[in-house]
Amino acid sequence: MATGMLLVCGLALFLTIKSNLLHSQQFTISFQRPSDCSVEQFYDISSQSCVKCGPNQSTSATGLSCECVTGFRVLATNGASITCQQCPLEKMAVTEDGYGCILCPGSLTEQGTCQCPSGSILVERDVQGNPLEEARCEVCNGAEPALSAPNSYGDRCQRCQASLINTSQSCMCGSNILAGGMCFPPNNLPTAVNPNVNYAELVSQHNRAQFFKCYLSGCSCQALGNMCVMNMHSFSSVANDACGLYNTIFRATAALGSTQDISYWRANLPWLYYGDQPGLANRVLQTEPLPTGFSFKGRNRNTDINLVAAVYNARGDFLQWEKVGGNNLQLCPDTARRQEAAYTFGTAYQETCVLSVADLLRVYAEPLFYDVFVDLSRGEDRRLLPLPTRNLNQEYNRKFINQGNLNDWYLSRRVLLVDTLSGREKSLGSLPKVIRIASSIRIGFQLVPGTQKGQVFPPLLSVTYSDVLITAPNTQTVSVTHTHIPDPTVTSVCSRCYRNDYWKRRIGSPLIDMETVLKFLLFYAGDLANVFFFITVGTGLYWLIFYKAQHFVSVLLPLPGLQEERFVAYVGSAFALKTVQFLHKLIQQLSVDIFFIDWERPRGKANKTIQGNGNGEAKHSPSPVSIWRTYFVANEWNEIQTIRKISPTFQIMAVLFLLEVVGFSSLALRDPWSDLQRPPQSYSPPYSLTLRYGLAATLWLCIGLLQIIFFTAFHERFVEDKIRQFVDLCSISNISVLLLSHRCFGYYIHGRSVHGHADTNMEEMNINLKREAESLCGQRGLLPNTDTQTFQISITSRLRLQYDRILEPLSRRNGPSRLVDAASGHPFDQSTKAYHTMNRFLGSVIDHAHRDMEYVVRDKLFFERVIGMEFLEPMDKSIFYNDESHSFSDVLFYGNEATLLIFDTLFFCVVDLGAQSFILAGVLTYVQQMIFRLIRNGIGRRNLANKTLVDKRFLI
Amino acid sequence: MATGMLLVCGLALFLTIKSNLLHSQQFTISFQRPSDCSVEQFYDISSQSCVKCGPNQSTSATGLSCECVTGFRVLATNGASITCQQCPLEKMAVTEDGYGCILCPGSLTEQGTCQCPSGSILVERDVQGNPLEEARCEVCNGAEPALSAPNSYGDRCQRCQASLINTSQSCMCGSNILAGGMCFPPNNLPTAVNPNVNYAELVSQHNRAQFFKCYLSGCSCQALGNMCVMNMHSFSSVANDACGLYNTIFRATAALGSTQDISYWRANLPWLYYGDQPGLANRVLQTEPLPTGFSFKGRNRNTDINLVAAVYNARGDFLQWEKVGGNNLQLCPDTARRQEAAYTFGTAYQETCVLSVADLLRVYAEPLFYDVFVDLSRGEDRRLLPLPTRNLNQEYNRKFINQGNLNDWYLSRRVLLVDTLSGREKSLGSLPKVIRIASSIRIGFQLVPGTQKGQVFPPLLSVTYSDVLITAPNTQTVSVTHTHIPDPTVTSVCSRCYRNDYWKRRIGSPLIDMETVLKFLLFYAGDLANVFFFITVGTGLYWLIFYKAQHFVSVLLPLPGLQEERFVAYVGSAFALKTVQFLHKLIQQLSVDIFFIDWERPRGKANKTIQGNGNGEAKHSPSPVSIWRTYFVANEWNEIQTIRKISPTFQIMAVLFLLEVVGFSSLALRDPWSDLQRPPQSYSPPYSLTLRYGLAATLWLCIGLLQIIFFTAFHERFVEDKIRQFVDLCSISNISVLLLSHRCFGYYIHGRSVHGHADTNMEEMNINLKREAESLCGQRGLLPNTDTQTFQISITSRLRLQYDRILEPLSRRNGPSRLVDAASGHPFDQSTKAYHTMNRFLGSVIDHAHRDMEYVVRDKLFFERVIGMEFLEPMDKSIFYNDESHSFSDVLFYGNEATLLIFDTLFFCVVDLGAQSFILAGVLTYVQQMIFRLIRNGIGRRNLANKTLVDKRFLI
Repeated sequence: MATGMLLVCGLALFLTIKSNLLHSQQFTISFQRPSDCSVEQFYDISSQSCVKCGPNQSTSATGLSCECVTGFRVLATNGASITCQQCPLEKMAVTEDGYGCILCPGSLTEQGTCQCPSGSILVERDVQGNPLEEARCEVCNGAEPALSAPNSYGDRCQRCQASLINTSQSCMCGSNILAGGMCFPPNNLPTAVNPNVNYAELVSQHNRAQFFKCYLSGCSCQALGNMCVMNMHSFSSVANDACGLYNTIFRATAALGSTQDISYWRANLPWLYYGDQPGLANRVLQTEPLPTGFSFKGRNRNTDINLVAAVYNARGDFLQWEKVGGNNLQLCPDTARRQEAAYTFGTAYQETCVLSVADLLRVYAEPLFYDVFVDLSRGEDRRLLPLPTRNLNQEYNRKFINQGNLNDWYLSRRVLLVDTLSGREKSLGSLPKVIRIASSIRIGFQLVPGTQKGQVFPPLLSVTYSDVLITAPNTQTVSVTHTHIPDPTVTSVCSRCYRNDYWKRRIGSPLIDMETVLKFLLFYAGDLANVFFFITVGTGLYWLIFYKAQHFVSVLLPLPGLQEERFVAYVGSAFALKTVQFLHKLIQQLSVDIFFIDWERPRGKANKTIQGNGNGEAKHSPSPVSIWRTYFVANEWNEIQTIRKISPTFQIMAVLFLLEVVGFSSLALRDPWSDLQRPPQSYSPPYSLTLRYGLAATLWLCIGLLQIIFFTAFHERFVEDKIRQFVDLCSISNISVLLLSHRCFGYYIHGRSVHGHADTNMEEMNINLKREAESLCGQRGLLPNTDTQTFQISITSRLRLQYDRILEPLSRRNGPSRLVDAASGHPFDQSTKAYHTMNRFLGSVIDHAHRDMEYVVRDKLFFERVIGMEFLEPMDKSIFYNDESHSFSDVLFYGNEATLLIFDTLFFCVVDLGAQSFILAGVLTYVQQMIFRLIRNGIGRRNLANKTLVDKRFLI
Repeated sequence: MATGMLLVCGLALFLTIKSNLLHSQQFTISFQRPSDCSVEQFYDISSQSCVKCGPNQSTSATGLSCECVTGFRVLATNGASITCQQCPLEKMAVTEDGYGCILCPGSLTEQGTCQCPSGSILVERDVQGNPLEEARCEVCNGAEPALSAPNSYGDRCQRCQASLINTSQSCMCGSNILAGGMCFPPNNLPTAVNPNVNYAELVSQHNRAQFFKCYLSGCSCQALGNMCVMNMHSFSSVANDACGLYNTIFRATAALGSTQDISYWRANLPWLYYGDQPGLANRVLQTEPLPTGFSFKGRNRNTDINLVAAVYNARGDFLQWEKVGGNNLQLCPDTARRQEAAYTFGTAYQETCVLSVADLLRVYAEPLFYDVFVDLSRGEDRRLLPLPTRNLNQEYNRKFINQGNLNDWYLSRRVLLVDTLSGREKSLGSLPKVIRIASSIRIGFQLVPGTQKGQVFPPLLSVTYSDVLITAPNTQTVSVTHTHIPDPTVTSVCSRCYRNDYWKRRIGSPLIDMETVLKFLLFYAGDLANVFFFITVGTGLYWLIFYKAQHFVSVLLPLPGLQEERFVAYVGSAFALKTVQFLHKLIQQLSVDIFFIDWERPRGKANKTIQGNGNGEAKHSPSPVSIWRTYFVANEWNEIQTIRKISPTFQIMAVLFLLEVVGFSSLALRDPWSDLQRPPQSYSPPYSLTLRYGLAATLWLCIGLLQIIFFTAFHERFVEDKIRQFVDLCSISNISVLLLSHRCFGYYIHGRSVHGHADTNMEEMNINLKREAESLCGQRGLLPNTDTQTFQISITSRLRLQYDRILEPLSRRNGPSRLVDAASGHPFDQSTKAYHTMNRFLGSVIDHAHRDMEYVVRDKLFFERVIGMEFLEPMDKSIFYNDESHSFSDVLFYGNEATLLIFDTLFFCVVDLGAQSFILAGVLTYVQQMIFRLIRNGIGRRNLANKTLVDKRFLI
């Protein structure tokens, strides 16, 4: 049995040791905090654990040591611990120092020390420090000349408070008014002080005391002023809250004159209000600019907003002058570098953060009050300009007066950030029921209109306070916004260019019917779009150059919101109009009439086996003209449909490269700097839509132009010119091309071979080519001895009618009445017949073989070229205009580069304005280009097959 | 005269008023600070200006009010101002309260009050508060039982200090040791205390006092410990600085036992050191994991690093327990949201900031000391694990011991952030000469190797302190870094896959000569590159998936630096090898042999006028076979040279879109989150190169595969298949294509028209096409009744020799001996002759007309297909392998999509790894693709023209 017990004990011991070892190996300790200790324990800071106090001891108030319980004195102390001893019955009170026992004259306090009546002091030692057997209570002599009262410890008589002596010549207030521990003579001032509705009795009592102090002694008006600030500068004509009392004193002390020559600043009073004249705010804010202007560049670069603030605490004590910046006047924590940006003129700074209420209560236990000034100091001449403040919570007669029109504003002075004081209900030690926080602080600048020197009007500090009801201080949060933004003045340049009343009037006029308007839109959409486009690009570029490059600040960016929305609307209109033009051109190109005229004539007889009629017999017929040349030309035409003067993908890549890799996008930031690469830690202001647009459009256009120059000046001359190649190919293959983009207008490429035949073998082809290279044969032109192969043509209606008539059976085939014709003949036969007929007909027209379809060749007049229109109507003769510039490419993408480039630019910019992402814009532009290219190629190919009767399978 | 004076005065007055008005209108005031006021002025906080004091007054210490000069008493006070009166000669001293005059028993102080000898108190009033006529100096009784001494004001006797009473039973220290105002009994402990070399006498005296306090009373060891921390935990075996004294006490109190079962933690002493056994650091850091693992996802998501700290001030007072996070243990200011990221496991947090010394001096006027613990609490079980600290500045015998090997580290406890105290030279009020700042704080985690539960070893807090010599406190700055980074363990998966010793051994062997190596590299570069590529992509993907998607943390990212550099080196090798393969293939493609065999035979006689011989006579000769079909086919071949199975630009756009717009790039951030879009204010950790690579390569491959699937499964089937079109075209145009990619290996496209003739007019072409569509004619295959048109061919050497012989005159023409041949004949003639010879020769070979150049058609064996090699050598018969899969596209970009795709992927990734910019990578990849396409097209076109004898002008 005993052995068993021993075993169990041993096991238990082993386990204990093991678990201790485990713990000690892992070094974990139990987590105890001072609040975890019981009444008999103190928190040992060395071991970070609760330790039991000695006998007759209990925890002290801090919880970190022990003290003797009531009735016990400290017998000995050795630093860390004490020994306690009970006082004998004859001396049952403990002395104030805790080390002795003493007999009391009167009763004992709860702590077991002697208690003396108020107005008396407790004396436990004589003047040499010898302890008395029995403590004495001595009454302080309050009369002249002693004028003494107990000190705060109650152990010495000392001179009593000055206000008591001043009022009553003794230490009694008597029949005078006692407020806030001070004594005031009676008078006819309002004594019933209305409490602030939000706050409690405490505040009301404070108001009253501060009022009397201020009114009568003139020393505590700062405190009263601060109470008025805590009350949001609000007052009414009837109630006597802090601001009412302030105003009472303000009016009453008019005779004392003003401070610093400012009439709103009374001697001994803080300056809280600007006057209440109507329109004063306007005059204060927009009359005289600051003496120094801001400049972004150059030797006199000056973008620092120098603000200083005089800081006061709630009691009205002046603490210090502080330079505003960094953490003061700024609730949101951030890196110093980014916070600096807040006080850089021209940078739009906006910071929103969510703060924990617990932190606020800890850091802003005492509210601080700021009188903010602009520091205008230059060298020795140190001057300040008070910053007018617009308190959006300010009420007058229960109405928010600062939220409406500028002329009704009632500017004020002195701001606070967090008020954790006036929400305390009973005592200053309690947790506030509500805290008030400056949830939005905004410093706004206005440029002097038309300034060239960067002059600005005095900035305006706008503060909005929010009340936060404290429900769960440890988890609650509150959101705070800081904005420092340059408010631009809308310059006249811009307001003028935005004016579209004119167009509205013109277009919206009811006298013009819808159809006219639509046609007008369709035909002039492009021009309108161009006007809108260049005006918006100009505007964007104007801001970009004038804002970013200005030495002295003379313009500020348009604000996000209405101004930018209007701008975006104009860009949108340009885009919509351009889209209309683009689609119109696209549809026109997709339905162009085209025919390849083959000049080749059969050269001999071939053994042709006509499988068609099924008899299999060989028949002698003219050796057929090979169709392969036509296939070749058609195939090439199909290929050049969507080539452009630029490489659209390179365009996107180059723009993306410049914007996102080189860093041009930084230029669109709302700050005055023009560095491309910003350090990653620096503050990144929001983008300006106007600048983004100006930047993107300009870059796009510039790169587009560079590409066009490169391709036309270098690539097409030295590498490859697809358009010229096509014209040459026509000539070599003995095929002419007739293009009719409109009913009676079109283009003609004369491709009659100078060698007469092209349908031949390699040997002859090579010889032909060589002969031509050595200029041994005739010239290629339509007219003898000319080189002009390409023409714009205005054909007569008669010619067009004939053209349509030949194609009629084919178009019927594609038309709606397909069922009827399906039986009327073999479509192949019809198509081949139509082809041959057309070939013969057009060949004879070009060869002047038709008398009634004659044509003349002439040069276009200069003016006709400029306006792109022909004066002569082809009445009985068609007109062929010489056209060296290959303008037949107008029916290809190639000839419409300007439209395409501007369309792409606008597409890119519109996507970017919507999504604020250049990359997305680039990707979508690529997709858009791809889709339209596919449409143009696909439908264009089908149109080509239909019109030229070349099988689609050869257009690859 | 008088009038003149009046006028001048009036003018002056007017000007004054005007200037006042101007000032008052602009509201500017002069900027005065308390320090600007002279001795006779005080700073009036109401008007924020200096105001003169009254008569007989001077500025008070604060500068905000006036006080009476020496010898004057305050006669009256009305809040704001006082009146002073000189004391009469018979009572020339002013009382301590300043309101009375009194006669002194002894001399006067500088301030004009009475002075008493030390140990005495000044009595000016009796116990009831009545003023005495003459002040008295009373000596405090220091003996038992009074034990009193003057209080700090010198106006009362009170119980003297406990250490005096304990030592001497009186208020005198006598022959005992007085240190730091305390009295200690004499003993044999070291009394000569070495001052810290860096710091001044002050510190040394403090050390000594704290040592005695701690040693003798056991109450102030925290302060001594803090001094040791301020001394960087450094000690030597000889000197008695703070840490030496700490260790003396530590050893001397061994008998007292340890606290909390931790042997390094002595009762009454702070825990400063882990033991000094070798390898202890290793054991502490890598033995037992924390009880709770971290997990990134799911219900048990746990990424919070819970640290708490016990905070002490320099005097050793315990202040509070603080949760580490936000601002404590963090010197850099930042938004709360970003600071939170520092204590999120798995997020690499690094923040560097520059702090102003002035701010540090203000905020950290008193140094705070942190005992940091990991909070392991779960519910009621509240436990802490002490965080081992590695102080990199710790010295032992003047050697930095914590900067070397882990096994030599000497871990410690307790850190401080800023020490502005020990650098103060003479008094605590002076400005420090030097401050010490924790310039780098790093919390590192190590995963338990092979853990699946996210278990980590105890984190290590590494602190590096820097000394900042204070020269210009207002402008000086100091840079601080905070790093919280998960240190990964290199997992076995990864160390194995990086092993390239094998290849090194194989390739680097000296037995193999350079040429063999080069050839080997050239031919197997592709396969090697693929191995490297898929291993690196796999590794990247492995990290991406396992790191970002892991529920329980089991892997951590490779660290920037050596590990990532190695990874990048492997990617670089893959890229280099792939480039070799790509260039090899490109060069092969650019020099491929190709010939178009025209099966068309002349069909009749044509009236041919041979202009070449100049006689102009018409001759009857067979109607020439038109070369235009050959031109057409050659032109098409030229066009399909660079088409690919994917759209490379779409590829780039799609990848950029996904990475930068959709936000996949966020996945490469060094944090455990897998959200694509991050809020702009959140902390953005650095990118991991491994993740970037894995992400980019995976996306690129995926989109590439999707594109290939789309193009092969949909586009080529329903829209357009250029390769099949080409084969069809061959058939329709009656032209076969012979391709020789190697000397005796190549491809053959059989294009003999089933209609016998193709060189005909549109009518017949249409009929032919229609007949074929209706399957009314034979099949297109080379063998009768088959459809197979494409073959891989292995030709005999004999055939190849014949081929070369026919082309010899042409290759000589292009060869170096050009001058000789220029006279030998007309190049056109030669070329045409060679063309016709070749056409006839190849035609007859295909038609089995050459007995000695016979060929057989067979299927490829399955295994031959798989390894892409032929087993049979074509000894006397060429072999045509049926090839349905159009593998002739191997000589085009089209057939090498895999190589191109991987090359592009690697190019993109390598650029991104170098520049960390996906956009730049995309742009450069586009440029690279463009350049290679231009090269392939340009040189390929020239090669085509040379080999097929088709004039370059028709390849457009």
